[in-house]
Amino acid sequence: MMQKKQFQYVRTFAPASVSNLNCGFDVLGFALHTPGDEVELRRNNSGVVSIETITGDGGLLPRDADKNTASAVVRLFLDKIGSRQGIAVGIHKKMPLNSGLGSSAASSVAALLAVNTLMGEPLTRKDLLPLAMEGERLACGNAHADNVAPALFGGLVLIRSYTPLDIVQLPVPETLFCAIIHPEVSVPTREARSILPEKIPLRDAVKQWGNVAGLVAALYSNDLSLLGRSMTDHIVEPVREHLIPDFNTMKQLATDAGAIAFGISGSGPTVFAFADGLPKAQNIAKPISAFLTSSKMPHQVYLSAINPLGAQLLIAE
Amino acid sequence: MMQKKQFQYVRTFAPASVSNLNCGFDVLGFALHTPGDEVELRRNNSGVVSIETITGDGGLLPRDADKNTASAVVRLFLDKIGSRQGIAVGIHKKMPLNSGLGSSAASSVAALLAVNTLMGEPLTRKDLLPLAMEGERLACGNAHADNVAPALFGGLVLIRSYTPLDIVQLPVPETLFCAIIHPEVSVPTREARSILPEKIPLRDAVKQWGNVAGLVAALYSNDLSLLGRSMTDHIVEPVREHLIPDFNTMKQLATDAGAIAFGISGSGPTVFAFADGLPKAQNIAKPISAFLTSSKMPHQVYLSAINPLGAQLLIAE
Repeated sequence: MMQKKQFQYVRTFAPASVSNLNCGFDVLGFALHTPGDEVELRRNNSGVVSIETITGDGGLLPRDADKNTASAVVRLFLDKIGSRQGIAVGIHKKMPLNSGLGSSAASSVAALLAVNTLMGEPLTRKDLLPLAMEGERLACGNAHADNVAPALFGGLVLIRSYTPLDIVQLPVPETLFCAIIHPEVSVPTREARSILPEKIPLRDAVKQWGNVAGLVAALYSNDLSLLGRSMTDHIVEPVREHLIPDFNTMKQLATDAGAIAFGISGSGPTVFAFADGLPKAQNIAKPISAFLTSSKMPHQVYLSAINPLGAQLLIAE
Repeated sequence: MMQKKQFQYVRTFAPASVSNLNCGFDVLGFALHTPGDEVELRRNNSGVVSIETITGDGGLLPRDADKNTASAVVRLFLDKIGSRQGIAVGIHKKMPLNSGLGSSAASSVAALLAVNTLMGEPLTRKDLLPLAMEGERLACGNAHADNVAPALFGGLVLIRSYTPLDIVQLPVPETLFCAIIHPEVSVPTREARSILPEKIPLRDAVKQWGNVAGLVAALYSNDLSLLGRSMTDHIVEPVREHLIPDFNTMKQLATDAGAIAFGISGSGPTVFAFADGLPKAQNIAKPISAFLTSSKMPHQVYLSAINPLGAQLLIAE
């Protein structure tokens, strides 16, 4: 196999992602254009992976290279290819942490794309997925793929199976736009998982997989009405909505403004709405943002189409 | 609305159907070309619906027009359109009863298409679905749609939701063929339902809806490998396989013969295999049939593509 060019310095971007899509808990996720994280790696002769700088995290991320997810996956990568390359890691968080937008996934994926590029692409992008999933295990105790897979590959992704890992890219209707609202309340992923029931009624599960099937059919047939009808959640939303202040008010505002669907992004507190085109996404975000402002709830709004590319190389030199 | 021509005598066919497709319990079903039932209706001046003849049922079906599903749905139909038309019903069972092939659905759907034609098509085919579902309630205690919808409309059908009723036609890969093996053991639908657990682990449900999503993606993308990988059942098959003698032997024989997927048709005892083309379907049926013969298990074999049309009018005069 021909080794590609190696680099001294690499900077990458990996996007935020929305997982679950209401009825597809733990199996569906899609990538956004914005927000996202940037990671920069620089070779050195130290023989170790170290954190050089972290910006935008408000001091929340571990500076210890053992505990930081981005540096940890760089180490996993180097172990896998049997390298003792010294690397200084810079992490630029450009999205909220613990937000339900796949913040840890964005950092891991950006770091893995960066180190793979730095080292001359010894692995394929597909090979990076299990390493990114290990990053998720470190970050939240569970090696889930519904943020790292879309952050890595882009698009709207189905994780059909974890053992063996089976990833399916689903088509995305061209006009589909996403309004993202992140209210600044804390919903740690571990806690949001711990409140889920271990067992669920078979009757509810049947409703859920009818909806998942409808969602996939809607994506292939470009049927936004079916997409909206399918994106209801009988299992997770009823348990988690209480973690998000004014969830039902926001849902009603989104529905009134013509949202195709509205739900919790990942484990929250971020919520998302699907809209037919950017102007409708703006119309949905506006009243929700106004409501949160009047409720004195600090929040961020993002508008984005589904990002078909996933993580991107920004600089390699 | 212009009333279409009415008839004195109508004869119809409605096909057998395979529901569940392993991972799509209660939400997926498809129609076969063969076997199926025929129903004939003749007007008379009695003012009542009566059973004139039943063939092919081995004397198992009720001759009482109140209790027979086919005559009962004819009555429901006449009630709905406010008619007191006298009708003599003939039912020709051309498929095994209590087989998991939607036998009651085939009779109900054939009867409803027949009476609608006889009366000059006052209802659409879509209007007939809720009446056919009422027939299922009478036949097995549950107004499920995963046999009546494919028998009525043909093709491979998703019941996305029951309330409100939302039916989605899914595309079928052109080369997809089905081998059907019906071992003559009794598995009443009511019993097969009663052994299902009321609650299931969330972890298993997630696997199941990942697979349902994969199955739908496979149908749209014509990916028979993904179809096969997706058609595993973590919920129902493990509970029901014990009701079917030598289920795992038949499954192994099907897999060895190149089956794309193998599973229980409806609530059994019929099993089905998907194959890429008729010759492979024959190759799958052959060793299973030989095995059942050597085990002294009486059985029937059917080979069929997916029937895209559903119930058909045979004679109207």
